[in-house]
Amino acid sequence: MTRNLAVNPSRIAEDIDDLAAITEPDRPWTRRSFTPMFLRGREYLVRRFEAAGLETRIDAAGNLIGRRPGTRPGLGTIMVGSHSDTVPEGGRFDGIAGVSVALEVARALRDQGVRLEHDLEIIDFLAEEVSAFGISCVGSRGMTGQLKPEMLARLADERSLAAGIAEVGGAPEQLSAPVRTDVRAFLELHIEQGTVLEEAHEDIGVVTAIAGITRIEIIVRGRADHAGTTRMGSRQDALVAAAWLVIAINQWAKKKAEGPKHFAATVGEFAIEPNAANVVPSSARLLVDARAERREDMLEFQGALAEMVRQVALDTGVPIDAPVTISDNLPTPGDPDVLDILDAACEAVGARHRRMASGAGHDTAWMARIAKAAMIFIPCLGGRSHSPDEWAETDDIALGAAVLLDAVRQLDVRLG
Amino acid sequence: MTRNLAVNPSRIAEDIDDLAAITEPDRPWTRRSFTPMFLRGREYLVRRFEAAGLETRIDAAGNLIGRRPGTRPGLGTIMVGSHSDTVPEGGRFDGIAGVSVALEVARALRDQGVRLEHDLEIIDFLAEEVSAFGISCVGSRGMTGQLKPEMLARLADERSLAAGIAEVGGAPEQLSAPVRTDVRAFLELHIEQGTVLEEAHEDIGVVTAIAGITRIEIIVRGRADHAGTTRMGSRQDALVAAAWLVIAINQWAKKKAEGPKHFAATVGEFAIEPNAANVVPSSARLLVDARAERREDMLEFQGALAEMVRQVALDTGVPIDAPVTISDNLPTPGDPDVLDILDAACEAVGARHRRMASGAGHDTAWMARIAKAAMIFIPCLGGRSHSPDEWAETDDIALGAAVLLDAVRQLDVRLG
Repeated sequence: MTRNLAVNPSRIAEDIDDLAAITEPDRPWTRRSFTPMFLRGREYLVRRFEAAGLETRIDAAGNLIGRRPGTRPGLGTIMVGSHSDTVPEGGRFDGIAGVSVALEVARALRDQGVRLEHDLEIIDFLAEEVSAFGISCVGSRGMTGQLKPEMLARLADERSLAAGIAEVGGAPEQLSAPVRTDVRAFLELHIEQGTVLEEAHEDIGVVTAIAGITRIEIIVRGRADHAGTTRMGSRQDALVAAAWLVIAINQWAKKKAEGPKHFAATVGEFAIEPNAANVVPSSARLLVDARAERREDMLEFQGALAEMVRQVALDTGVPIDAPVTISDNLPTPGDPDVLDILDAACEAVGARHRRMASGAGHDTAWMARIAKAAMIFIPCLGGRSHSPDEWAETDDIALGAAVLLDAVRQLDVRLG
Repeated sequence: MTRNLAVNPSRIAEDIDDLAAITEPDRPWTRRSFTPMFLRGREYLVRRFEAAGLETRIDAAGNLIGRRPGTRPGLGTIMVGSHSDTVPEGGRFDGIAGVSVALEVARALRDQGVRLEHDLEIIDFLAEEVSAFGISCVGSRGMTGQLKPEMLARLADERSLAAGIAEVGGAPEQLSAPVRTDVRAFLELHIEQGTVLEEAHEDIGVVTAIAGITRIEIIVRGRADHAGTTRMGSRQDALVAAAWLVIAINQWAKKKAEGPKHFAATVGEFAIEPNAANVVPSSARLLVDARAERREDMLEFQGALAEMVRQVALDTGVPIDAPVTISDNLPTPGDPDVLDILDAACEAVGARHRRMASGAGHDTAWMARIAKAAMIFIPCLGGRSHSPDEWAETDDIALGAAVLLDAVRQLDVRLG
């Protein structure tokens, strides 16, 4: 694919390759937040931000920000970015592609001598991935006043999250309220981490909503019995009951996912006790991860799940506790005006695009609390992500950068 | 229940209560083989054996044996017994009841002034339960020449099983062939560890066979994917496929168990990878424990299991390895002559009895290789076993002792 784009693909590829080289050497590609390797990645980004002419700083939440002032001070900020941290043995593109294209937007504006009326900020959010502190989206939660005191007090290796934020240059004592009131719009590019675009041979997904994520725990309470002597008809086998539940959940989710809106449910954690060859399983624990673009689908699932539990307990004679919701985050719709602008930007640069939901959480979900926010997806190979196999083509990333550039210019006019 | 038995229930209860008191104090009732607590139990038994007038010794396999010589030297030995070791937090009756009633048989013969023609030996087998060395029935395997050199070389806490046997007084260097050629018949009483007798309100189970035990491993190979972004229809969820297998195995076994012969199949070990909330399970491991009274049922199950695996892999699109048989022990039928003698003994003492299979393994399965062997079951409360809740009534145990006493006297005549 050769296009005449207003962005420079080779600069994007250079950012991504250079960051990929900054990895724990024995487990590529690993650059977890709050580690020395992460700080080396940040040092590289600071140099690139400064080379692009950006005023570079760390904010109170530990986010790295590069600023390009607008021509009308006080009009507010358009912010673009993602995150540079990775999961262990994660990929080269998850987050990083979004930071690099944001930077490329700033470089392209400079190259073209375009001055925006709004301030433009390029951001590398701190710790989007779950870190040793067991919490995701630290930087975007912090910026939006959503880092609760109990989160800041969490410990990893006897260090609090607050101390971790301070060590990367933040000011955790300022995080009790939203750090910013001037952000008018936020845009994020991310790899899809799925196969919708790849299978449809499309370039850009305009993300209508970030799915809500609800985690639900179910405990099955069977009875430990001798596997040799206890008759098949006299058992309360927790594993058999749990297996019926796994299947019921999977079948319900498959049916719901055939509808127009994103829905998924996964039993990702599953364990039995006592887990001994010659003992009938006495208990099982399931952790269900459910994602819904529409809140009503999640509520319907929770109701259906309670009924599945009741029915399986009845059919198998094995007691099952009522499902317990462990965490429950609402869906975040993209800002309708920004979605229209992104559609128009795709048309302007000639990108084949579709509207679609995000099954994964992103910093955009937090930024939507303080700004008009939306995100775009680009294709990635086979949907692989959080894996060394993660891959995205430079041309696809650059096309996304061109869409963002166009959208930023439209926003600068439309936000007024 | 009050009966006029030729045995003394209170002596049996005293043995069992005294042994119960010899336990790891913080986790009753625990007296694992090769531990100091086990040796304290043995010291108690030696005193009881000697008080019963028995010539007491430890054999090459570490078994405690009390001997009552017969009137016709060289005629051979009738052996009766079980084991005094327990599982961790095991019960007070599993094995112990069998040792105590064997001892009571010897005491009753002495009290009644009965001299047998055959030598009578009361035995406490070493380490019937799986010990730190990861192997069951050490004493009966050793006595019958079935402790292979690789078993004797197994280590626990840097000590070999051979060294462990030597420490309890055995002579492991003599175990390359059967230790004994003179044992004509072997009898063992054991708690049922099931509910057949309890539910039928019967006193004695005459054990027609000890089920064969086959352990089969199955590995399900799915694909790790992001639980939020991967569409339901594009997944290879190892847990869902494994759940279908668990159910197929359970349904097949339930149907087979409705037949006249004992059959059971249990998935006792089950684990998934990576076992993370937001990742579609990439693999699952199942360990199936199957028990069959008839070898042909086990072979049929193995064939059916291969077909289940093929069908579930086909239906779910998740690859599953062919099942791998990890261990495979054949069923052991009780000696037909001894079974008839045991039936007759039940009639003689007025015990309600039935023939039934044992789903659990026992020392008798090994003794059957060198002697005419069979065992009897007595009821236990709710089938509970390998649990602190294990319970058997003294009167039920004593009735079993009376059956054994009668059977020993019949054998003494019939064996010739």
